[in-house]
Amino acid sequence: MNESNNNILSHINFPSDLRKEPLENLEEVCKELRSFIIDELSNNPGHFASSLGAIELTVALHYVFNTPYDRILWDVGHQAYAHKILTGRKERFSTNRKLNGLSGFPSPSESEYDAFTSGHASNSISAALGMAIASTLNKDEKNRHVIAVIGDGAISGGLAFEGLNNASSHPNNLLIILNDNNMAIDHNVGGLNQYLVNITTSKQYNKIRYDLYNAFRKYNLINDDMKGAILRFNNSLKSLITRQHNIFEGLDIRYFGPVDGHDVCSLVRILNHIKDMKGPKILHIRTIKGKGFAPAEKDATTWHAPGRFNKVTGERIIVDKSGMPPLFQDVFGKTLVELSKRNEKIVGITPAMPSGCSMTYMMKEFPSRTFDVGIAEEHAVTFSGGLAKEGMIPFCNIYSSFMQRAFDEVIHDTALQNLNVVFCLDRAGLVGEDGPTHHGVFDLTYFRAIPNMTVSSPINEHWLRNLMFTAQTKDKGPFMIRYPRGGGVLTDWHNDMKEVEIGKGYMIKEGTDIAVLSLGPIGNTASKAIEEAEKRGLSIAHYDMVFLKPIDESLLHLIMKRFNKIVTIEDGILKGGFGSAVIEFMADNDYSVKVKRIGIPDKFIEHGPVADLHKLCKMDKDSIVETLISKW
Amino acid sequence: MNESNNNILSHINFPSDLRKEPLENLEEVCKELRSFIIDELSNNPGHFASSLGAIELTVALHYVFNTPYDRILWDVGHQAYAHKILTGRKERFSTNRKLNGLSGFPSPSESEYDAFTSGHASNSISAALGMAIASTLNKDEKNRHVIAVIGDGAISGGLAFEGLNNASSHPNNLLIILNDNNMAIDHNVGGLNQYLVNITTSKQYNKIRYDLYNAFRKYNLINDDMKGAILRFNNSLKSLITRQHNIFEGLDIRYFGPVDGHDVCSLVRILNHIKDMKGPKILHIRTIKGKGFAPAEKDATTWHAPGRFNKVTGERIIVDKSGMPPLFQDVFGKTLVELSKRNEKIVGITPAMPSGCSMTYMMKEFPSRTFDVGIAEEHAVTFSGGLAKEGMIPFCNIYSSFMQRAFDEVIHDTALQNLNVVFCLDRAGLVGEDGPTHHGVFDLTYFRAIPNMTVSSPINEHWLRNLMFTAQTKDKGPFMIRYPRGGGVLTDWHNDMKEVEIGKGYMIKEGTDIAVLSLGPIGNTASKAIEEAEKRGLSIAHYDMVFLKPIDESLLHLIMKRFNKIVTIEDGILKGGFGSAVIEFMADNDYSVKVKRIGIPDKFIEHGPVADLHKLCKMDKDSIVETLISKW
Repeated sequence: MNESNNNILSHINFPSDLRKEPLENLEEVCKELRSFIIDELSNNPGHFASSLGAIELTVALHYVFNTPYDRILWDVGHQAYAHKILTGRKERFSTNRKLNGLSGFPSPSESEYDAFTSGHASNSISAALGMAIASTLNKDEKNRHVIAVIGDGAISGGLAFEGLNNASSHPNNLLIILNDNNMAIDHNVGGLNQYLVNITTSKQYNKIRYDLYNAFRKYNLINDDMKGAILRFNNSLKSLITRQHNIFEGLDIRYFGPVDGHDVCSLVRILNHIKDMKGPKILHIRTIKGKGFAPAEKDATTWHAPGRFNKVTGERIIVDKSGMPPLFQDVFGKTLVELSKRNEKIVGITPAMPSGCSMTYMMKEFPSRTFDVGIAEEHAVTFSGGLAKEGMIPFCNIYSSFMQRAFDEVIHDTALQNLNVVFCLDRAGLVGEDGPTHHGVFDLTYFRAIPNMTVSSPINEHWLRNLMFTAQTKDKGPFMIRYPRGGGVLTDWHNDMKEVEIGKGYMIKEGTDIAVLSLGPIGNTASKAIEEAEKRGLSIAHYDMVFLKPIDESLLHLIMKRFNKIVTIEDGILKGGFGSAVIEFMADNDYSVKVKRIGIPDKFIEHGPVADLHKLCKMDKDSIVETLISKW
Repeated sequence: MNESNNNILSHINFPSDLRKEPLENLEEVCKELRSFIIDELSNNPGHFASSLGAIELTVALHYVFNTPYDRILWDVGHQAYAHKILTGRKERFSTNRKLNGLSGFPSPSESEYDAFTSGHASNSISAALGMAIASTLNKDEKNRHVIAVIGDGAISGGLAFEGLNNASSHPNNLLIILNDNNMAIDHNVGGLNQYLVNITTSKQYNKIRYDLYNAFRKYNLINDDMKGAILRFNNSLKSLITRQHNIFEGLDIRYFGPVDGHDVCSLVRILNHIKDMKGPKILHIRTIKGKGFAPAEKDATTWHAPGRFNKVTGERIIVDKSGMPPLFQDVFGKTLVELSKRNEKIVGITPAMPSGCSMTYMMKEFPSRTFDVGIAEEHAVTFSGGLAKEGMIPFCNIYSSFMQRAFDEVIHDTALQNLNVVFCLDRAGLVGEDGPTHHGVFDLTYFRAIPNMTVSSPINEHWLRNLMFTAQTKDKGPFMIRYPRGGGVLTDWHNDMKEVEIGKGYMIKEGTDIAVLSLGPIGNTASKAIEEAEKRGLSIAHYDMVFLKPIDESLLHLIMKRFNKIVTIEDGILKGGFGSAVIEFMADNDYSVKVKRIGIPDKFIEHGPVADLHKLCKMDKDSIVETLISKW
């Protein structure tokens, strides 16, 4: 941080400092915040474009509202960097997303200014409504303001709608701010998005507003005394002109806007004007994702989380990865295109993550067979179920932790009918810097419990391709394939795909003292650990089970008969997971073998580099060696 | 079935028969269907009022559309009895909800006329959209019609909104029929409901329609050539008059209605008129739940599923249960009121099930502290999280199988912040006649995997009360209590509540040969089985673990040291559940004990009386005895 460029900001450590500044200084504060964030993020990567777009809003909110007594909920939380900087965390901001450093998302355990967890989209309205209603019930807190700031991407989630639909049910003064940049991570989809575009771009609106206003007074539908009626009149008019309807007013929430979200003084004025109005209300602001940094304004998808960059030239610092194994994501994306060329029944479904999961390849090649449904995981799954019911083979790609949103739909709308939906769970296991909200650690347990479901994880790219190939062959039913974020292990990843036998594991190497059973890419770490442990005189066999369900029982019989020490290794929570499946088999078949289970313990794991987190969970190579060579 | 009263219906076995009837006969068909349903349901209980309300719609749909080639999805499925009767299942209708009989919900495995599973609300639009888009991709099926019939209760679910929001994204001809009876199971809540009421009751609408139409033509906003524009004009006008806005048009779905859902000829005419219009459309019909049976029209909540009744007098046949143990539901409901009187921080949250879970007691006593949020499980949980964050103690009561909808919210919006939300999972375990969509069998597995979560189940009413009491004492974090549908075991249920130690089980009876470990009310069946097995010369100890998480490790150490045969019993899926927790403990602590796990196997269990289903799963008394006395 360059103090000389931050004359005002250098004196602001908390919102109470900000509130001492005169209104006319706020633009300068925004400017300094922007250059501070660009500075920091160019060195220490993070979510960039969203936070730039929310700077003026952040300053206005902390200026007008009495935080932390008043509550601000950020949805999704990665727009909250300016908020973190203004709330006592400026000096520590360089530790953002690092192990033991600041979280990349608002985190109540980190600061009292972070009102609620906000890693998964669309939760802010429901949570804020709960908080707002609590303040009406707690006698001493009736004057508390609760503000939910929700992006136009997040508002398409079903949870957000449920929140909106309930906002007017009980007395409360909730303020919802719709931060509309017409851009979730990729871009928005759906009727609601088209609606938000239309509402803000009508040219006719102002031209005929006055004329019609008079016409309507004649019918006594409005009069000047009725502020609410005039508001509704304006909205009705907008609706009529844009051939669209005000959804929020339809849900009995007072609607204001749209207004310019980068005019900080005007935001302050509007917020002051509406803050004490009774009842739930929504303020619709228009912002530009990446605002103030030209390359990000031009290509917000790339600059959502750009990695390091040169803040002067705007050039991203791309690490040369030629000669390195590709990302699992890219292997998925390219393989999906290959398969789709061969099998015309294949369709691709992603909830707002076409770039993240690399479904962009298919989108380009087969636009009419690729469906980005927006932030709507439940719909993604049930929609896939509908497609499968009519004979299509949907590859439904959802990040593991977001798939939790669709657990019921996986059971009710696919597995119960044994439909052939291929669930590709990207970002499975510990994901690193995004932290506890994003770790994909529960999927092995909750997918294993579902009847009819095949659950698998490839150890490398060849297996990923073979599993994808297998999943789209005839009558496979619901089929889950999980793989982690990031690079695989093979540079020569493009094998000839072949069908593999469902529920069949295999031996990677022989051994006599201990059998290691692994599932998924963590098997590669296991291999290295075994090599190391064998140098200490042990002989260790290694099996890649490939399938958690159905698990290879004949292989397990062989192993249980041959070994009396077994180690299971998985990149998932231990309770109910892969190791648990192995010992269930033992119990059911009366084997008495010593088993050590390596995996994620029963707690929420923090953020930080994956390697550090694996060490924390004793899943890194050295810790596995320790387990193998320990006395038992 | 009385043939003499069913002159037309007796000749109709399939929709193809119906379609041979002249239009003027349809009213009579409806009349006969109605008396057929009243007849059957008075003897063989089922979902009554919803099905009566959908008779005209059902007849009109099968008359106009080419089923089963065209697809009808019923949401929620319990409005589909007339559909079942018209589609080849009239003769078997008396087996409705019985073991090996017809399912109470549409079931694709039962009939090709049942297009999709529909036990959980709000899935129809997404599934139908998938089917409609599949028909645009499958070249030979482009002329297929897909119709989603969704109740005004179900449409408030987030999944339904996600479906609506995506309906206009890709070319399709989906027809959504909103079956609006202003009544989910109890009654509807939320802004959307208010909206639907307003849209249909405006008196001003017709009066000034013509005047304004001319005024608007002047501004060239509409002209007579534009049918779509006129439609939108009408909707805009309705919106303006009702001070409400057309949400569906806002989402770019053509809206028609509202129309009378009991005028079968007019429904046929309208459906014929709109069926071949391109693009997604919604037809809003108004119906009366319980239509044609006066007592049900008057009190649709009671008559949602009334049990047996006298079809002439309309008197419900109430089994005298005085002297019998109360329902777990009533113990929950009354205990919640008791606790709320003592602790002003307690609030109650239910997603549309106040009667079903007996939160009605609290609703009456503490209306401002009780929240029926409508069909919106995700919101119910996140809203509870918000309330808890501000110091309230929410008792969030959700049926076990519906809680699957909120799995992510339980993790992300409560457990991650260690918030004191009390999750009361009603209808846990096998629920009987409602069948596979409604069995609450996964909760032990998916709740056990969540860090910070306490997971418990009471063996009887006293324990339910003690657990509820304990859960609301200071700083207990997220706390889950599961209990089944129906009666408990104690007539003297009203004990003095006391706090119990978290994670503490206890011994019910001593023994030396085998230890039985049970969780929840199935422990009572276990007790009887033990008694029986001891007559055969065995000595069997019995432990009620009470808590699945944290599990009582010191008790387990004692048991493992003392016994070499253990039986675990749970009313949940075996994969990852209670028995699995016990053997995880064994593996982690190097115990080698024979374990037999009794619980639900890895498949979807059909519908039928709970006793029959327990037998099917070898969880009934006799089967447990078999297990205990078998050689092992």
